[in-house]
Amino acid sequence: MFNMPNQRATLEAFPIQGLGLIEPEDDVAQLIWDGLRSNQLSLAEGDILVVASKIISKSEGRFVNLDQVRPSREAEAYAQQSGKDSRMVELVLRESQGVSRVSRGVLVVIHRLGFVCANAGIDQSNISESDHRALLLPEDPDASALKLRSRLQERTQLHQLGVIITDSQGRPFRYGNVGVAIGSAGVPTLRDLRGETDLFGRVLQVSMQPFADLVASTAQLLMGEGHEGIPAVLVRGLSWQLSRDTAQNLVRAAEHDLYR
Amino acid sequence: MFNMPNQRATLEAFPIQGLGLIEPEDDVAQLIWDGLRSNQLSLAEGDILVVASKIISKSEGRFVNLDQVRPSREAEAYAQQSGKDSRMVELVLRESQGVSRVSRGVLVVIHRLGFVCANAGIDQSNISESDHRALLLPEDPDASALKLRSRLQERTQLHQLGVIITDSQGRPFRYGNVGVAIGSAGVPTLRDLRGETDLFGRVLQVSMQPFADLVASTAQLLMGEGHEGIPAVLVRGLSWQLSRDTAQNLVRAAEHDLYR
Repeated sequence: MFNMPNQRATLEAFPIQGLGLIEPEDDVAQLIWDGLRSNQLSLAEGDILVVASKIISKSEGRFVNLDQVRPSREAEAYAQQSGKDSRMVELVLRESQGVSRVSRGVLVVIHRLGFVCANAGIDQSNISESDHRALLLPEDPDASALKLRSRLQERTQLHQLGVIITDSQGRPFRYGNVGVAIGSAGVPTLRDLRGETDLFGRVLQVSMQPFADLVASTAQLLMGEGHEGIPAVLVRGLSWQLSRDTAQNLVRAAEHDLYR
Repeated sequence: MFNMPNQRATLEAFPIQGLGLIEPEDDVAQLIWDGLRSNQLSLAEGDILVVASKIISKSEGRFVNLDQVRPSREAEAYAQQSGKDSRMVELVLRESQGVSRVSRGVLVVIHRLGFVCANAGIDQSNISESDHRALLLPEDPDASALKLRSRLQERTQLHQLGVIITDSQGRPFRYGNVGVAIGSAGVPTLRDLRGETDLFGRVLQVSMQPFADLVASTAQLLMGEGHEGIPAVLVRGLSWQLSRDTAQNLVRAAEHDLYR
């Protein structure tokens, strides 16, 4: 029992390192293509590419200079309540449909994209100090995923290729940030296992698998969040069918949410 | 770019199939040991074994015959409110510290183990119809994980071995059930990345990685929930340090929870 296993892993994940710092108008598809090559990786049928939203945002120029943001009266009020910079709060509100909770240092909001998250996913880390910039989430991460997928398909002629754009988000009840899919193309994002039977033939009543979120959390194990800077992960070996799902399928409707 | 990659995957996950139906007093360590062998797998330093709580519960005989449960008045009231079987509600309440939300078919409770989950994690699937049994979560999943780890260490003499006991849980805001760690031994469950610096030397303010939950969600991709019946997954290749953490570290304290 002490020799290496003979079995091939069913799931494999490869970090794509060394993409460098992404700048506005960088061609992310090209950079990932080059990154795959320099990491001795090639794409194959069934592969899923998981990409950190941050590099998509940067390439799309989603920077805002805080010095040019004029806070509204509402932003000033939330800033006082939360202890956050009022210009930052203003950006959070502009990116949101509504506010869910306010606490010290955090506004939990319903993002304009529908999901609930802290500070509208706006990021100030991994951005240089010299300019007072904040980085918004991509304008339309599902569209960004679709575009990236198309570019990679043009190059590879692969049929079954998935792209997931992931963000790191906190959650009620449990500590820590998990990876979630905020953009997706090609893969099923939410698989409905209801109707499948269990081992005894009893029909499973509630069993929805958030496939794209689980893949995002898998990638998160390799991405880290600090100086490691691994902005993309290749996930291989999972069984999935081509799908037109988007990350929107994962967003729980207000009427199904006991906690919003 | 069309040949297979040369790089070894950083993360690999292997399903452990064919453990069969687990019965009370079954020796789970032995069954997993045999399962590893029949799946051509052997344990190595740094491996993490992820085990579905259901087989731990079964081996620990955590069955309750619903016919022998007498519902309290409180249970009757919640049963009426939720439309659930009052005996089942009684079991849910016995396994809980408190009720968080009630809705059609579901009581979201604070489990006696501290985490918030639907119906106290009590399961009626994959249990035969003939006897009206429900299956409770393990009595003390952290202890179960520690015991399983010890048994496997005795056999292998491995130093760095992790065991995670996982349950599938729903969540606010997003559809679908994710894998979470309800028991853990050997691995860090929550990694504090605060204090690490980002690419520009700025100190990350909030960055806690729920390592054991992310590993549980990775395994969940292979376990499925239906008839596939893959109750254990071997996760290999992750970088982690031996830890005395338990799954309790993941449970958000009430005073840090904006949603409880």
